[in-house]
Amino acid sequence: MARYMKGISKKRGLKPGSLVHVGKKTGKSSKISIMDYKGDKFEEKNLKNIEECFAYKNSDSITWINIDGLEDMSLYEKFGREFGIHPLIMEDILNTNQRPKIEEFDEYIYVVLKMIYYSKNIPVVEQVSLICMKNMVITFQEQELKGDVFDNLRNRIRTPGNRIRSANTDYLAYAIIDSIVDNYFVALEEFEDRIENFEEKLLKNPTNEVFTEIYNMKREMIFIRKSVWPFREVINVLQRGESKFISGETSVYFKDVYDHTIQVIDSIELFRDIIEGMLDTYLSSVSNKMNEVMKFLTIFSTIFIPLSFLVGVYGMNFDNMPELKIHYAYQILWGVMILIAGGMLVYFKKKKWL
Amino acid sequence: MARYMKGISKKRGLKPGSLVHVGKKTGKSSKISIMDYKGDKFEEKNLKNIEECFAYKNSDSITWINIDGLEDMSLYEKFGREFGIHPLIMEDILNTNQRPKIEEFDEYIYVVLKMIYYSKNIPVVEQVSLICMKNMVITFQEQELKGDVFDNLRNRIRTPGNRIRSANTDYLAYAIIDSIVDNYFVALEEFEDRIENFEEKLLKNPTNEVFTEIYNMKREMIFIRKSVWPFREVINVLQRGESKFISGETSVYFKDVYDHTIQVIDSIELFRDIIEGMLDTYLSSVSNKMNEVMKFLTIFSTIFIPLSFLVGVYGMNFDNMPELKIHYAYQILWGVMILIAGGMLVYFKKKKWL
Amino acid sequence: MARYMKGISKKRGLKPGSLVHVGKKTGKSSKISIMDYKGDKFEEKNLKNIEECFAYKNSDSITWINIDGLEDMSLYEKFGREFGIHPLIMEDILNTNQRPKIEEFDEYIYVVLKMIYYSKNIPVVEQVSLICMKNMVITFQEQELKGDVFDNLRNRIRTPGNRIRSANTDYLAYAIIDSIVDNYFVALEEFEDRIENFEEKLLKNPTNEVFTEIYNMKREMIFIRKSVWPFREVINVLQRGESKFISGETSVYFKDVYDHTIQVIDSIELFRDIIEGMLDTYLSSVSNKMNEVMKFLTIFSTIFIPLSFLVGVYGMNFDNMPELKIHYAYQILWGVMILIAGGMLVYFKKKKWL
Amino acid sequence: MARYMKGISKKRGLKPGSLVHVGKKTGKSSKISIMDYKGDKFEEKNLKNIEECFAYKNSDSITWINIDGLEDMSLYEKFGREFGIHPLIMEDILNTNQRPKIEEFDEYIYVVLKMIYYSKNIPVVEQVSLICMKNMVITFQEQELKGDVFDNLRNRIRTPGNRIRSANTDYLAYAIIDSIVDNYFVALEEFEDRIENFEEKLLKNPTNEVFTEIYNMKREMIFIRKSVWPFREVINVLQRGESKFISGETSVYFKDVYDHTIQVIDSIELFRDIIEGMLDTYLSSVSNKMNEVMKFLTIFSTIFIPLSFLVGVYGMNFDNMPELKIHYAYQILWGVMILIAGGMLVYFKKKKWL
Amino acid sequence: MARYMKGISKKRGLKPGSLVHVGKKTGKSSKISIMDYKGDKFEEKNLKNIEECFAYKNSDSITWINIDGLEDMSLYEKFGREFGIHPLIMEDILNTNQRPKIEEFDEYIYVVLKMIYYSKNIPVVEQVSLICMKNMVITFQEQELKGDVFDNLRNRIRTPGNRIRSANTDYLAYAIIDSIVDNYFVALEEFEDRIENFEEKLLKNPTNEVFTEIYNMKREMIFIRKSVWPFREVINVLQRGESKFISGETSVYFKDVYDHTIQVIDSIELFRDIIEGMLDTYLSSVSNKMNEVMKFLTIFSTIFIPLSFLVGVYGMNFDNMPELKIHYAYQILWGVMILIAGGMLVYFKKKKWL
Repeated sequence: MARYMKGISKKRGLKPGSLVHVGKKTGKSSKISIMDYKGDKFEEKNLKNIEECFAYKNSDSITWINIDGLEDMSLYEKFGREFGIHPLIMEDILNTNQRPKIEEFDEYIYVVLKMIYYSKNIPVVEQVSLICMKNMVITFQEQELKGDVFDNLRNRIRTPGNRIRSANTDYLAYAIIDSIVDNYFVALEEFEDRIENFEEKLLKNPTNEVFTEIYNMKREMIFIRKSVWPFREVINVLQRGESKFISGETSVYFKDVYDHTIQVIDSIELFRDIIEGMLDTYLSSVSNKMNEVMKFLTIFSTIFIPLSFLVGVYGMNFDNMPELKIHYAYQILWGVMILIAGGMLVYFKKKKWL
Repeated sequence: MARYMKGISKKRGLKPGSLVHVGKKTGKSSKISIMDYKGDKFEEKNLKNIEECFAYKNSDSITWINIDGLEDMSLYEKFGREFGIHPLIMEDILNTNQRPKIEEFDEYIYVVLKMIYYSKNIPVVEQVSLICMKNMVITFQEQELKGDVFDNLRNRIRTPGNRIRSANTDYLAYAIIDSIVDNYFVALEEFEDRIENFEEKLLKNPTNEVFTEIYNMKREMIFIRKSVWPFREVINVLQRGESKFISGETSVYFKDVYDHTIQVIDSIELFRDIIEGMLDTYLSSVSNKMNEVMKFLTIFSTIFIPLSFLVGVYGMNFDNMPELKIHYAYQILWGVMILIAGGMLVYFKKKKWL
Repeated sequence: MARYMKGISKKRGLKPGSLVHVGKKTGKSSKISIMDYKGDKFEEKNLKNIEECFAYKNSDSITWINIDGLEDMSLYEKFGREFGIHPLIMEDILNTNQRPKIEEFDEYIYVVLKMIYYSKNIPVVEQVSLICMKNMVITFQEQELKGDVFDNLRNRIRTPGNRIRSANTDYLAYAIIDSIVDNYFVALEEFEDRIENFEEKLLKNPTNEVFTEIYNMKREMIFIRKSVWPFREVINVLQRGESKFISGETSVYFKDVYDHTIQVIDSIELFRDIIEGMLDTYLSSVSNKMNEVMKFLTIFSTIFIPLSFLVGVYGMNFDNMPELKIHYAYQILWGVMILIAGGMLVYFKKKKWL
Repeated sequence: MARYMKGISKKRGLKPGSLVHVGKKTGKSSKISIMDYKGDKFEEKNLKNIEECFAYKNSDSITWINIDGLEDMSLYEKFGREFGIHPLIMEDILNTNQRPKIEEFDEYIYVVLKMIYYSKNIPVVEQVSLICMKNMVITFQEQELKGDVFDNLRNRIRTPGNRIRSANTDYLAYAIIDSIVDNYFVALEEFEDRIENFEEKLLKNPTNEVFTEIYNMKREMIFIRKSVWPFREVINVLQRGESKFISGETSVYFKDVYDHTIQVIDSIELFRDIIEGMLDTYLSSVSNKMNEVMKFLTIFSTIFIPLSFLVGVYGMNFDNMPELKIHYAYQILWGVMILIAGGMLVYFKKKKWL
Repeated sequence: MARYMKGISKKRGLKPGSLVHVGKKTGKSSKISIMDYKGDKFEEKNLKNIEECFAYKNSDSITWINIDGLEDMSLYEKFGREFGIHPLIMEDILNTNQRPKIEEFDEYIYVVLKMIYYSKNIPVVEQVSLICMKNMVITFQEQELKGDVFDNLRNRIRTPGNRIRSANTDYLAYAIIDSIVDNYFVALEEFEDRIENFEEKLLKNPTNEVFTEIYNMKREMIFIRKSVWPFREVINVLQRGESKFISGETSVYFKDVYDHTIQVIDSIELFRDIIEGMLDTYLSSVSNKMNEVMKFLTIFSTIFIPLSFLVGVYGMNFDNMPELKIHYAYQILWGVMILIAGGMLVYFKKKKWL
């Protein structure tokens, strides 16, 4: 499991608004890509440096700038200065330990989101920041991802005549956020698959690995829950349509995203309940299995105890032990011992101990 | 247990309002039935295609259209276009993973409900969507059910002079929702029967199956609870009578439905408490039974231990062991051993260990 | 424990306001009694049929009609029609699975209450409905009870000059509700007696019956809690004095009842905590007792194990075993064995295992 | 532990405002003491009967009347009549099962408080009622206590020139309530001492008494919590300064008391968490100790088992057992057995079982 | 773990506003340091007595006075009188058992904060009080700390041209509070390091010390949580910008601190969940390890039981035991016994008991 708060303390004592990257270092440089469109007009390219995108600032088309990678401080300093972003917001963009939140300013609206996906069966949470201006949406991701959650959305923008081509930035912001929330369902379905496969194992063979697995799943859910829960409040602000950046028409779409977020939270709570139940089942199976073994062994031993006593008796060296002289005494004793063992088995069976 | 969120991810990246069926595939085509009435006027028939019902759109009688089956996309596209339903609502109707919710538009009110019934001892949750317009109520079910929860209601509509014949669509919507809530009681009573039968088994013979059964019941309650809990808020909106589609007179009836929903939730919480208690009882019984067995076996063994020691003593081969020469020593030893065993039994009895 | 929701499903699909008795069948006919008073005027009698009480409808004295038994449908139909009670309210009166609630209409106020008493150590919850009109209070009980909670109240009404003789129906309604709440304290004191007696048993002898008893008490508290909890909200409505049927003067008295209800709820929560603690104590005692037994037996066996080994050694048949020839070897061995056993006892004692 | 609700049921069916003492009987008569002061004027005496204090009713000095003992009904009847206290309030004063609460009337403000102190290591909760009028504060205690929580306060009043001498009754009421809250800290510190002493015992020697002690402490905290929790709301009302009896200046002081009350509640919650943790520790230690014992004994037995088998082998009476003839076979066998035992010890040690 | 409420009871019965130090005694005298600045003007010095700082009271530069040590009563009396601080506030400054809180007066705003740092692996909570006036900020610490959380802040003030040099006291107050909150992250990261290191130990070797460690960590988190939780409400008041001491511009910065506080609380909750999970893991490992040992030993014993019985059989002394005469009987018996032992091993392996 990834560390929850690695590196936050680096910022201790710095003046507010200091630009410091807080998060995993990748060493890669930032990648800037741009989509600019309005009705039939459409342009898509990768930029080499941040200055190239300043030209789009006052165009009347819709521009979506996506920046992957948060480690190039000079890029972010230039960007913040040019677009007039509050220093505290610039600081938040680079600090990947943010909670999902929304803040509205005169010129733009700032949203922090968490993207969740499974990479090699481990849940990864990446921070996505989004700034929505009058004619521009800028998104910031921690790193470039293959099979990006935005691929479908990009294709829709590329398609001439698609509704999104004629809509404003609020609709674009909605589409981006919706892509992220839709991706939660993908992650949760993968999680549900895992639970399902796992449940069989649980009942058949409750090994120690099973416990570790349940324990990990429990912790993953705690982890994911922390990322999604405050998101609900963020979307709630957007769907109430109080922001001047969100038109009434688009707020209906945010209402839809809000419903989806609630569904995601519901599912997480359900999975937590199910995992809790699996833990109970595991503990009960382990103890049942142990009990079964101990009971078998104890019963097995118990049957031999009176027999061993009897053979001990006839191993004694008293001068006068009449049974020893009887001719078939030895054979009779075997018979008696088989009877005793059989009787005990029947008794245990009747008592339902076997 | 049915999967909780199978197939939601299919919709990832589609544009909002895309019509996709999310749920179990049945392969059956949709069945459209219609009831049209006003006072003495009454007509009931099954439609072959969705176009037939467009005629009722502007009639001044009350029309109830019921559509079973959510897999015929072209039907729903035509329907949505003709009746002017918002694309997001059409999308919601076809997505059976909705939470119960209510949304009001200018021309209609949209309600998502969950129907619960037991099929072969497994609880099934089906989604019912309801659109209430000025002179029309349209309901959407996932599949046609025999012994439908609406049978009684249909009979009331068929009966000339019944109050419902002279009421508006809000009363019809109430009657439909009331039928669904009444059915919750049926499902919960079946559940209570199961608990009652089960409790006897629990105390008599706490096998492993008992645990699995408790575990399943617990999970079913979690499942049902998730479906009913948000329903409360839906009915609360309806009973407040703030909607222009709900007359003050009808809102009294919705208040009644609200009381019933609270009662359902109360019962679910009670059953959860009871199941939790049964789990405690199970664990306690299992451990008691195990303890009883182990105690018996241990006491049994313990009694033989000093006896085996004694017979071992007289099996020794020392040259000088005076007891061996005594004539009735063997017989005396038997007496002593019986005394020891008896004494131990009395001691254990006195200590209440037996 | 009584069933929680037996028979509610009988009502499935009936039209709202259908009069159906939902509850335990007793087969007895309803008993109607009446008290009519104003200052010095006082009349008390049992009525043979419901029509007799219609005469009091427009009198200017205060009338309290009490009806025991909810199974005579024709009685209730006549009653509802004559007094203009809303059909849904009539339905609620006959359905004994109601939650405590309050509803206000133009002509009357309707309150559902739960009466709790212990009958043969089992808590019984009976529903009492109360309709308070301008000059009449009508109460409905499930069955006639001996040692009724209202006996003291009736005596006060019978006493000339008692404050209640000159008060209005709101005060009478208060007095009736107060009697019911006072009775909760009686039931809870009986419950506390039971806990107290029980606690001694718990510490002395934690048998299986003790567990069942705790389990039952826990369930009873869940049961009682469900009945009392919503009652708080009912009284809260009454004490706020917003109803036109409750004068400001009387609302002070309802505030007092409200305080009592909170106290009842506090006690229930306390008892739940105590029962939870008793369960922990029980489980701890059982496991302690078991441990004590197992430890004793294991130590007992352990002491004999090296002794049995020794006697086994001297039972061997090697040709050359010098000890066997020593004259007092046998006696010496006994000494050694006694020393070993004693040493082990001392060791175990020192380790505090005994 | 004292009973929680002994005697409340005595009041069943009595008319509201009936004066009945509900609480522990002491048989002592009530003790009335009075302090009357204003600036330099100061008078302090014990009264023989309640009538004596009526004289202070219309004086313009500040009077504090303290009555210890709630069992003299005639005293309270006279008092209530003379000072115009509402019958329900008089009833509440005498019922020591009240929750902390505050009620405001035109002529006075009524506060119920709980005083907590430890007497012989058992927490005692005593009810204190306080009536604050324009120029009088009357307090009611269940019994006279030595080392009263009010001693310091009385000394401050006795000191000429103390701020309290020139303040109004609201400040006196504040001072009284503050004394009671300060005393909570004393009780909680005693409790913390007990926890601290106890913790050592817990880790060293987890006997059965330890469990009983934890169990008692848990219950005491539940008990104290019930008394303090509603107190918070009472003080909140006072600190908001909405009452006409509380001047703005004094409400600052009540804000201080409010902070203290929150601190008391925080401490109680902390202690509950700590006690919960001690219970976990206890259960874990008991099980650890038991495990240690059983493991030792089992290992001990296990080592002898193969040895006993071996000596059994050479105790057999077969005609042809070559080893028996070997001259030092017996001595060799001892060597082998010592090797086996040693080997097993090493193995168990390596496996960290010892 | 430090005591939670040592010494509060010392104040019992004192008049409100009495200056008493409540906390750990250090015996050191107080240390007063001062920073006075405005734009380019900057002065920093340590004061010998409190009177020296009175001069700064009416200057038009920004002054930050920091006082370490709360035990010099005369200093505080002089200070309170000179600056007109309310006696209750002076009392609060000296009482180190305060909860974080904020109080606003006409002339100043008073904030109580808790500083958390780890000293030798034990969390220490120190109280910091802050008074913010128009041109002065005064902070009070319990003792002088090396590596003070304010060092970075002091350096920023010392740097000419730093933003803080031209800002008002509200910004200085923000900077101080921000330093304290930033330090929480440092403490929590240390805590997370500890959890991480610890987790390895937990899975490898669940000793008794592991339990004590988990138990301590749990308690530390309870402890820290109590200190941070109410802090949230304090910052919330500041960020709402309702105070006249906080300008709108600065309230944006307090919003940032608020977000950090929420993050701190989130982390604490997460750590609590993780610790709870580690406790479960510990208990499960302990029981698994114990089970493994017991199972091994029991199986080991069980295998010897039938063998010991057999050798017992041929140790009997019957006259007629034909097997004894067979020449290779002894060797055959060894074969049989090896077969039995092997068979049992195979059986246990197949049953997955080994």
